[in-house]
Amino acid sequence: MLKELLTRNRSTRRFDQSSRISEDQLLGWVELGRLSASGANLQPLKYFISTEESQNALIFPTLAWAGYLKDWDGPIDGERPAAYIVILGDPEISKNFGVDHGIAAQSILLGAVEEGFGGCMIASIKRDALGEVLHLDNRYEILLVLALGKSVETVKLAAIPPDGSIKYWRDEKGIHYVPKRTLSDVVLNTSK
Amino acid sequence: MLKELLTRNRSTRRFDQSSRISEDQLLGWVELGRLSASGANLQPLKYFISTEESQNALIFPTLAWAGYLKDWDGPIDGERPAAYIVILGDPEISKNFGVDHGIAAQSILLGAVEEGFGGCMIASIKRDALGEVLHLDNRYEILLVLALGKSVETVKLAAIPPDGSIKYWRDEKGIHYVPKRTLSDVVLNTSK
Repeated sequence: MLKELLTRNRSTRRFDQSSRISEDQLLGWVELGRLSASGANLQPLKYFISTEESQNALIFPTLAWAGYLKDWDGPIDGERPAAYIVILGDPEISKNFGVDHGIAAQSILLGAVEEGFGGCMIASIKRDALGEVLHLDNRYEILLVLALGKSVETVKLAAIPPDGSIKYWRDEKGIHYVPKRTLSDVVLNTSK
Repeated sequence: MLKELLTRNRSTRRFDQSSRISEDQLLGWVELGRLSASGANLQPLKYFISTEESQNALIFPTLAWAGYLKDWDGPIDGERPAAYIVILGDPEISKNFGVDHGIAAQSILLGAVEEGFGGCMIASIKRDALGEVLHLDNRYEILLVLALGKSVETVKLAAIPPDGSIKYWRDEKGIHYVPKRTLSDVVLNTSK
């Protein structure tokens, strides 16, 4: 069951922008992050949520999309995220956020996928610009942005090609392929 | 459903050591990590799995347990983990592992919990000692150790006490309490 959810949870970058996400839905997903483990239980993460079109339009240009697709500048209007969750680190709680934001982001995205949405973790962010448009207290460190919406993209796992490249690609129909290492590639000490 | 799984997935440090975990179970959980997102799809993580008592006994003393419990040195013999997954970074693939190991560790632990097991992410590790006992190629960076087993511990979430401390504690019955910030503590911009 979890495996099915994890298999469905593919990074997706094209959405039906008209399928809106409510504040309550976003809070329900953040709650999953809140329930997740935190290094030394410090819980230094804060969340900024955005679901209004006008605010989303300010966030969008601060994000970099799909670095390996050189001829694609990111989703066109109509296929942009319906909501964002910005994950911040609060240095008044800890100077070191460890992998807390990875743990929380995974919980949040799985929650979105369970409810029929999807999204993408974005770490390539114009941080100064994003902090400015959201009027964030500049003490916060911007760690990750989760772009969320109803996916209109088909994403498939693929084998790593003979040249070893892990760059995802799209075919002529727009299907997005993500090459994944095999289990025996990643487990050092198994005979299976 | 996911929320129920995340709520059950509490960091647990005391196990029924006689409830063994097979290599196939460990591989099934690593598979969940493999299916998870990776920054720029680089997939720089490798996994070392351990389920043999003799090897587990070498790993155990390289780990630090429950830093806030000053009068507890970690689980006694009989309550130690039945298995470990050591998550490594391969610098031949990337020098920067981002939060990949947090994402993967969360997937793996949720998989263990779904099957009635549980565990704990440990980042406080005597890395040189662990590398030595496992005969790891010293190019690998040891990122996290997941300690796994059938939990014999009751772990409950609690409110943060008035002094604001996030240190977990145990009561006289050995119940382990973890104080968690509230949703309104962590979401910067909600009116709810």
